[in-house]
Amino acid sequence: MAGPNDEPSRTIKAFSGEAYPGLDPGWEPVRRRKRVKRSSEMTSAAMTKTSTGNFFEDFRIGQMIRHATPRTVTAGDVALYNGLFGPRFAVQSSDAFAQLIGYPRAPVDDLLVFHIVFGKTVPDVSLNAVANLGYAGCRYLAPVYPGDTLTAVSEVIGLKENSSRQTGIVFVRSTGFKQDGGKVLEYVRWVMVRKRDQKAAAPGDHVPRVPEAVLPATLGDACPPIDAGAYDVTLAGSPYRFDDYAVGEKIDHVDGVTVEEAEHQIATRLYQNTARIHFDQFSAAQGRFGRRLIYGGHVISLARALSFNGLANGFHIAAINGGRHVSPLFAGSTVFAWSEVLGKAELPGRADVGALRLRTVACRDHPCADFPLKSGNEDDPAVLLDLDYWVLMPR
Amino acid sequence: MAGPNDEPSRTIKAFSGEAYPGLDPGWEPVRRRKRVKRSSEMTSAAMTKTSTGNFFEDFRIGQMIRHATPRTVTAGDVALYNGLFGPRFAVQSSDAFAQLIGYPRAPVDDLLVFHIVFGKTVPDVSLNAVANLGYAGCRYLAPVYPGDTLTAVSEVIGLKENSSRQTGIVFVRSTGFKQDGGKVLEYVRWVMVRKRDQKAAAPGDHVPRVPEAVLPATLGDACPPIDAGAYDVTLAGSPYRFDDYAVGEKIDHVDGVTVEEAEHQIATRLYQNTARIHFDQFSAAQGRFGRRLIYGGHVISLARALSFNGLANGFHIAAINGGRHVSPLFAGSTVFAWSEVLGKAELPGRADVGALRLRTVACRDHPCADFPLKSGNEDDPAVLLDLDYWVLMPR
Amino acid sequence: MAGPNDEPSRTIKAFSGEAYPGLDPGWEPVRRRKRVKRSSEMTSAAMTKTSTGNFFEDFRIGQMIRHATPRTVTAGDVALYNGLFGPRFAVQSSDAFAQLIGYPRAPVDDLLVFHIVFGKTVPDVSLNAVANLGYAGCRYLAPVYPGDTLTAVSEVIGLKENSSRQTGIVFVRSTGFKQDGGKVLEYVRWVMVRKRDQKAAAPGDHVPRVPEAVLPATLGDACPPIDAGAYDVTLAGSPYRFDDYAVGEKIDHVDGVTVEEAEHQIATRLYQNTARIHFDQFSAAQGRFGRRLIYGGHVISLARALSFNGLANGFHIAAINGGRHVSPLFAGSTVFAWSEVLGKAELPGRADVGALRLRTVACRDHPCADFPLKSGNEDDPAVLLDLDYWVLMPR
Repeated sequence: MAGPNDEPSRTIKAFSGEAYPGLDPGWEPVRRRKRVKRSSEMTSAAMTKTSTGNFFEDFRIGQMIRHATPRTVTAGDVALYNGLFGPRFAVQSSDAFAQLIGYPRAPVDDLLVFHIVFGKTVPDVSLNAVANLGYAGCRYLAPVYPGDTLTAVSEVIGLKENSSRQTGIVFVRSTGFKQDGGKVLEYVRWVMVRKRDQKAAAPGDHVPRVPEAVLPATLGDACPPIDAGAYDVTLAGSPYRFDDYAVGEKIDHVDGVTVEEAEHQIATRLYQNTARIHFDQFSAAQGRFGRRLIYGGHVISLARALSFNGLANGFHIAAINGGRHVSPLFAGSTVFAWSEVLGKAELPGRADVGALRLRTVACRDHPCADFPLKSGNEDDPAVLLDLDYWVLMPR
Repeated sequence: MAGPNDEPSRTIKAFSGEAYPGLDPGWEPVRRRKRVKRSSEMTSAAMTKTSTGNFFEDFRIGQMIRHATPRTVTAGDVALYNGLFGPRFAVQSSDAFAQLIGYPRAPVDDLLVFHIVFGKTVPDVSLNAVANLGYAGCRYLAPVYPGDTLTAVSEVIGLKENSSRQTGIVFVRSTGFKQDGGKVLEYVRWVMVRKRDQKAAAPGDHVPRVPEAVLPATLGDACPPIDAGAYDVTLAGSPYRFDDYAVGEKIDHVDGVTVEEAEHQIATRLYQNTARIHFDQFSAAQGRFGRRLIYGGHVISLARALSFNGLANGFHIAAINGGRHVSPLFAGSTVFAWSEVLGKAELPGRADVGALRLRTVACRDHPCADFPLKSGNEDDPAVLLDLDYWVLMPR
Repeated sequence: MAGPNDEPSRTIKAFSGEAYPGLDPGWEPVRRRKRVKRSSEMTSAAMTKTSTGNFFEDFRIGQMIRHATPRTVTAGDVALYNGLFGPRFAVQSSDAFAQLIGYPRAPVDDLLVFHIVFGKTVPDVSLNAVANLGYAGCRYLAPVYPGDTLTAVSEVIGLKENSSRQTGIVFVRSTGFKQDGGKVLEYVRWVMVRKRDQKAAAPGDHVPRVPEAVLPATLGDACPPIDAGAYDVTLAGSPYRFDDYAVGEKIDHVDGVTVEEAEHQIATRLYQNTARIHFDQFSAAQGRFGRRLIYGGHVISLARALSFNGLANGFHIAAINGGRHVSPLFAGSTVFAWSEVLGKAELPGRADVGALRLRTVACRDHPCADFPLKSGNEDDPAVLLDLDYWVLMPR
């Protein structure tokens, strides 16, 4: 199977800016008093046992990081995810529906799997992040069912110090595994990480090529062969199958959903994602935004759930080509979304499903009937997320 | 078994007003920009795929609507429901308790089943609703256990255009099924729905008779025969059995619970209920109330959980005779409740349980020691809900 | 096995003050209108069926109280607990990890078990509490797994009227059981309870001796023998095992988490804890604080989850020696925590795990790099919780 580096690639230029321009100061947590202990307090074992996460100079090209904490996904996680986002895709919602088309039971929502794997990487990769710059080459490799236990490993595949010497970009390829050792998910991510010491030498200087998009031929590993004839479009909520969508078609998902602090905190903890900026209002109050920043993945899940209205049969996210968190989301805002069909592809050897390449754009406090995206050459100020991904749809 | 129309009926007059007088403008979502695409954007498949729901003129008498999305109920849903409402009825709380009296395991809370079935009907029946006018003839027909998959079908049994010609009342009989095809729940509901086009012809003119109350002889299908002697009243939380209650008795449930936005949103999404007015503060801010309206079923579940204090052994809702959402609830309010025993009935051939007909009244920011209901001829302004239902209680 | 009273004991003097000095008026719920019914409403069965809880004069030394409501703990409860607190201890998070070291599957989080057992005691013991004064001798006696059903029994072991004659202290030994009759948890708790009638005679006058700390020899019943060699410290999130900790060592857990009203309400309802002060803003608005008071156990769970950063391998709480809720927590505050190693102990006959005695201190809106505890002879005003407990850690 082709790896991401074998595919048409984009250069990092397009993503070398910060996700949110000028964001740096805002992400800095409150400067804590120095954690040096007085000698009277020191014992032989008194070195701090608190993890402070890795800083830019701590990474090395080729480094493999096995992440804590293994996590058994349960029907409880699925229920809470449903309560927080309200997805309605029939395959994930109903064991009976899933079994009728060929799954052993309802699989776990693809984004819940992503968030859990991603969450594991945070304490090692992005606890000292300034900005989450981008994703690429995210592919789903096996379905996950309640009872499966997920673990994650990241390989450092690139490092690039910024000219300020205060931060650098870390590129990792993260892989999620289940208990049998099989891969369930892999993706490349790059993130701007602070240096502990500005004068420290850069630990490497290599910008990897990342794929412009996941090749259709590599899609579908996480979707068993399905009986598309047994797929009941009425129960699924929409008559539109793969052949009914056209490249260039735009869909307003109409509905809006307002986000509460409790909701994004519960979600982000469910993934065991420990990034402090999502939880600590005391420190955030003294930062640039004055607010807790909502985990970017929360916006992805909201947009995916909203996209049901118009894309109800796009039941499986097979890959994420890339995405930008264009602006930050805070509690109290209402999220709307629209999508455009960027491409269509048949999967080699499969007549059961086809792949739609979608751009889904999420906006803040702005219904999307006018498909907001750009304002001149700039991003429309309402845009939160611009996500490029492949979904599978029955034919 | 007798159908609702075979039973003593009430006329619709009593319910022909709007649930919340003068509510109409408030429920209107923000008028969206026209969703017409420019011709340059049009493709052969570019008709909108977004469901806009049915308008009054889209319904036909006798129409059968199979609803999306099938939903497997899990122990996760039960846990989240417990966290959101805090019910303490022993049968639903404990597998061990349920098994001791004759259930195979703890059944799913009756109202969780109702909300899930109801939620499925929303995208087809009430997405364009102005007001939810009433329920009748709601009967539970089989117990639901974690692992069961629920689906729903509605039959349009009545249509009545309003004199304004801007709206009409739609009557449906909705039925919930589980995966084996057995019915778990049925009820009649009527709802005022907007017309898309005021000039459209009325699609029918028939007001069905709805039952005044569910007949006792038809109760109990969802409650297996229980061993009332094995029912441990100490573990269940109250010494009072069926024979200890008297018609006319009133019970103040004492406790109050304040509702948060995150709570009702999580609950309503858990049911996959997509009614926009519960989730979209951006649009609500421009409406009559300026607030997200809380799903009426949320009040029912709060009142039911509060009613444990005084009705702890009324472990199963066998039927809902009718109910009125007297006034809307918004986050930040505190809900109190009281109940009155309206009637008592033995079930033919059953010595294990008896049926109490209850009126449970929920109030906003008003403790219920004085049993608020009417203020002269008007509803007491504190009243949120006036619910008439049957519970089963061990003898 | 030694009972708490066989162990070195402390006198009640140290705990005879109120938990929050001067708190009494604040905990008083709004005085309700008298719940006396007019005679016209009275029927033979019309005595109130609402439980008003026990008042101080209702208790008797030696009284055994079997509490409602039995509760089957499920994977759904675990998921919701995870979403609310974000614990990352590998043993509880992963079936695969737990099985590798010798558990049949991942056990339920120890504090979730505590809260559920504690919650059952509230309607009988502390519905009329003025202040929750202290805990002692809390030991975990068997692991709990999803599917187990928990019940609780309390024995009244002490009673002491306060000089005001308006309140008295009730001492109970509460025990949690699972469906097979085995004990899972026991603890002593004392709580100040209002009298219904100030003139009522005191129902007893006995202050039991409570243990200063649980003896190490009695720890570990809820932890099966584990294969410490199979315990993967990388997956668990920290290289530090039992031998790496030294008495006197202090650890700042660094992270802060802000608490929302919806979160603590959902958590507290999940435990079926009915204490009104946590849920009823209408009544609280007229009390001393003007706010809903957050369940003290919420702070314990937050502190435990935060303590992962520095104590990741302290996977099992074996006992709670005692604890003080130093000041109340309200929504909107951010909780930080630090810990000190108070002692270390080997467990007789066990080479797999050792016990660390920890003090964990939680603070409000105050990062803990300076280990806040006292301000002169007074409690530091930031301190919420001072908890003394034993955790097991692999050797």
